[in-house]
Amino acid sequence: MQNIRTDLAVEAHELSRREAKNVTEIDGVISDVRTEDGITVTNIEITNENGSKALGKAIGNYITIESPNLKYSIDIYERVCTLISEEIRKMANIKSDSLTLVVGLGNRDITPDALGTEVVSRLLVTHHIKQNMKDFFDDNISGVCALIPGVLGTTGIETAEIIKAVSEKVKPNLIIAVDAMAAADIRRVSTTVQISDTGIQPGAGVGNNRECLNEETIGAKVIAIGVPTVIDAATISKVEIPKELAPLMVTTKDIDLVIERTAKTVANGINLALHRDMTLRDIESYV
Amino acid sequence: MQNIRTDLAVEAHELSRREAKNVTEIDGVISDVRTEDGITVTNIEITNENGSKALGKAIGNYITIESPNLKYSIDIYERVCTLISEEIRKMANIKSDSLTLVVGLGNRDITPDALGTEVVSRLLVTHHIKQNMKDFFDDNISGVCALIPGVLGTTGIETAEIIKAVSEKVKPNLIIAVDAMAAADIRRVSTTVQISDTGIQPGAGVGNNRECLNEETIGAKVIAIGVPTVIDAATISKVEIPKELAPLMVTTKDIDLVIERTAKTVANGINLALHRDMTLRDIESYV
Amino acid sequence: MQNIRTDLAVEAHELSRREAKNVTEIDGVISDVRTEDGITVTNIEITNENGSKALGKAIGNYITIESPNLKYSIDIYERVCTLISEEIRKMANIKSDSLTLVVGLGNRDITPDALGTEVVSRLLVTHHIKQNMKDFFDDNISGVCALIPGVLGTTGIETAEIIKAVSEKVKPNLIIAVDAMAAADIRRVSTTVQISDTGIQPGAGVGNNRECLNEETIGAKVIAIGVPTVIDAATISKVEIPKELAPLMVTTKDIDLVIERTAKTVANGINLALHRDMTLRDIESYV
Amino acid sequence: MQNIRTDLAVEAHELSRREAKNVTEIDGVISDVRTEDGITVTNIEITNENGSKALGKAIGNYITIESPNLKYSIDIYERVCTLISEEIRKMANIKSDSLTLVVGLGNRDITPDALGTEVVSRLLVTHHIKQNMKDFFDDNISGVCALIPGVLGTTGIETAEIIKAVSEKVKPNLIIAVDAMAAADIRRVSTTVQISDTGIQPGAGVGNNRECLNEETIGAKVIAIGVPTVIDAATISKVEIPKELAPLMVTTKDIDLVIERTAKTVANGINLALHRDMTLRDIESYV
Repeated sequence: MQNIRTDLAVEAHELSRREAKNVTEIDGVISDVRTEDGITVTNIEITNENGSKALGKAIGNYITIESPNLKYSIDIYERVCTLISEEIRKMANIKSDSLTLVVGLGNRDITPDALGTEVVSRLLVTHHIKQNMKDFFDDNISGVCALIPGVLGTTGIETAEIIKAVSEKVKPNLIIAVDAMAAADIRRVSTTVQISDTGIQPGAGVGNNRECLNEETIGAKVIAIGVPTVIDAATISKVEIPKELAPLMVTTKDIDLVIERTAKTVANGINLALHRDMTLRDIESYV
Repeated sequence: MQNIRTDLAVEAHELSRREAKNVTEIDGVISDVRTEDGITVTNIEITNENGSKALGKAIGNYITIESPNLKYSIDIYERVCTLISEEIRKMANIKSDSLTLVVGLGNRDITPDALGTEVVSRLLVTHHIKQNMKDFFDDNISGVCALIPGVLGTTGIETAEIIKAVSEKVKPNLIIAVDAMAAADIRRVSTTVQISDTGIQPGAGVGNNRECLNEETIGAKVIAIGVPTVIDAATISKVEIPKELAPLMVTTKDIDLVIERTAKTVANGINLALHRDMTLRDIESYV
Repeated sequence: MQNIRTDLAVEAHELSRREAKNVTEIDGVISDVRTEDGITVTNIEITNENGSKALGKAIGNYITIESPNLKYSIDIYERVCTLISEEIRKMANIKSDSLTLVVGLGNRDITPDALGTEVVSRLLVTHHIKQNMKDFFDDNISGVCALIPGVLGTTGIETAEIIKAVSEKVKPNLIIAVDAMAAADIRRVSTTVQISDTGIQPGAGVGNNRECLNEETIGAKVIAIGVPTVIDAATISKVEIPKELAPLMVTTKDIDLVIERTAKTVANGINLALHRDMTLRDIESYV
Repeated sequence: MQNIRTDLAVEAHELSRREAKNVTEIDGVISDVRTEDGITVTNIEITNENGSKALGKAIGNYITIESPNLKYSIDIYERVCTLISEEIRKMANIKSDSLTLVVGLGNRDITPDALGTEVVSRLLVTHHIKQNMKDFFDDNISGVCALIPGVLGTTGIETAEIIKAVSEKVKPNLIIAVDAMAAADIRRVSTTVQISDTGIQPGAGVGNNRECLNEETIGAKVIAIGVPTVIDAATISKVEIPKELAPLMVTTKDIDLVIERTAKTVANGINLALHRDMTLRDIESYV
């Protein structure tokens, strides 16, 4: 697994099984795969420290929704939106008086890293309206607020610190953090959505450890949603990449389209989850 | 003054004097104008409640730097950068161990409102580097961090609340807030920079009162810097503008260029003020 | 009509009737209005020189499709797409072996002027595929190519000259030119689509006469489609606007959204007209 | 050389010599390298068919200007601008009554491919002004016009056909075509400018042959300027890349900055070459 970086539990699982050269399951990992009409959903549950160590991921649940046609087919888009909303609702109990803070991570000036900020710009944000006009909304429109904290290099402040500060003020019941990810297999770039309930470490993965934001440290459940948009150059390169150069990434030539389509998919999955009575068509009219 | 909206003290002063039909000064307002080689600098000091009421502005200092060639001439650009840095240093005592939080207000998706966010993207941010490598910097590079809080309509959270939350965490000695402004006179659009020490009310001016962020309420001096990029349609329209329509703004056709040039001017004025030993050329190499 | 500028025949007609202080019709102008479920369609036919002079528009047909909800409602969007496609097909005989050149006029770097270029980026372009894989397509996918010629100020070449040059090479049967427009009434900004068959004069209206591109001068029928996105400041200003300043425009604060939504509407109206067997849903999957 | 793609003659030369396992020169290739203060300039002249075949490049001159600090240092930027202008003037005889057509190739919606269009937006275009105000300019401002033809996938028209059509109308004495390139060595991405006098083949290199635009086929000298911004994934990947996936590219994480800085460098090199009496500072004031 040397030099191979992946943010996907499903790939860490594959690599780990390949390394162990066994076909039976790893202790501490329960996995389940189902495929229907071109969409594959994989549940990976890491149940103990052994599983956590084997996969290099925290204990908890990782749902992967995959389809090669995610960026082209309207049918797939609509079904993936629904799947995302169902998985969010399984992980969190959304009530009409819940307040969810959606955090768009990543750097909006680097196209493949702009997934989180693009998702936030497509949300149906309601918190300020609910506060001022309590009777304006149906019971099934829950409270939603959003934050784009920026990245350490441009703010000078740890992203986790900004999220914590704002979270302490607005006191959400749930935090959903969205970020672009790195995959190891090029077939997963732009075709995959991962949803997990194990918290986030903004800025980690770049070679440094960061504090984890999860229910324990921030007082609200934290769901992380990601789409792989790049592969680390080191993962696929046959030549050594000199450390003094600007970091390289491998991405698809249609990355602008990928970000637009997958951001719409993730955003509307979240919108559907948080506003129970709205249809996809209602949501597309509003945002 | 009915229907005329201006964020510039210099225009409020002109309108107020015109209304009073007097040539002598208003009680509670001290003004001073000097012009040199195509740049006019006006100091307006509001010293008491009478002056504050007459101009509709808080007690304090308002510096206006004006030049019709601000967006074209490199000479003017360089001199205005220096003037901005001098005025900031007069208002705040910047030391090498100071920490300044620069806040980029406004909506980055509306070009004439993107001044604040564009300024932040041109800053020499140092806080995270100073924290990790204390000996890396010269004595005259002060600590700088930055925040783009977004706008109420897209975050669902009062902008002032986000700024306060982050400010309480990072505890800056100084806050500099940058925002686009509305002028009353079309000659001032894109030709003027205003610097004031009276705090900010993010989101006010759209017809609602908001809490003021100033030294009293946030525990750090707050300098506001703005450039007028629009005129309210109501200010110049001879027809009534129906309330049910989307809000109208009057702006220049070259607003993209205006934002780019004035953001660079304001950002480098701030960079010069906060990093005392750097030249404009040094700064342009880094950012 | 002094100082009032409008690109809409429907407004020129209103102004002309108001000036003439009559309620009966102007000689040389036939008009017809029908409204259905929130959409108003006005046909103005200018039949002779008198009508042309009265309205300041060339002899021919001008269709205006208006709805205050054009930028919000998906229902209105879908119906306006269909109306646009029907009007295009009435004006031009599109066959499966037709070649249409769609020209996106305007300056993509000025948001309210970017309609034409945004429409072109949403087209289902087929010319190159049809040339190389003649059997790939259904009979009802016609040939479509597209051009973004730029504006005189950035190319140094008259836009009409670029269009003519390319048109002489690719020899289209039909040219559809899309451009942002100026309205006189703020209620029409972003709510109106005009379709006409009288040709285009790229760069005219800025105070200079330009050669008209029409069937006579370019050898192909020319349909012009526009959406008003601005009002000339001179049209509504109560103060004289000094000539030495950068030109001012009045636009809506949500102009980014307006351009995105109306470009999608016009593009898909064109796509439906040119690819007879495709549904709106098919088209949205492909582009 | 299997699977290795490079647009740089200097790399083709290196690979060819490595393959030939010799240290002496290849017949038909004359090379010359000089380094001064951090900038390396390599001249490669291909003089006969043998050299052309060995390097896979047309007969002619290829100048490579390299500096690891191209994107950071203002000093390097200024010196590279001057070097580019000198090389252009060596290749073409620019007189005050010359007309140069600068063509910005590539797809502006894919960041690493946007070099050409970004260069065009930074040019001092003069053709339309010279035509209308013959006495306005100094003798040493030559005629400049510009074209962004788009890419085959979005126009449906061969790029070469658009360039030829416009060139036949405006009849330039010189064409300068600017495009992003692929390198084989990651050290050359964003650090290198190549200038050649052998013409261009827009759209070639994607695996298809295209007609070459050069003095013979278009009647004007054609200078090509490029900066490598990507590496083909196939060049460095240790795994086979499936053909059915979206094409992958390897680029740097700071590609937005790279494009901005290198586009400014190439544009101002061109501006200096075409407007002999202007300084870099003059040019930066105007564009």
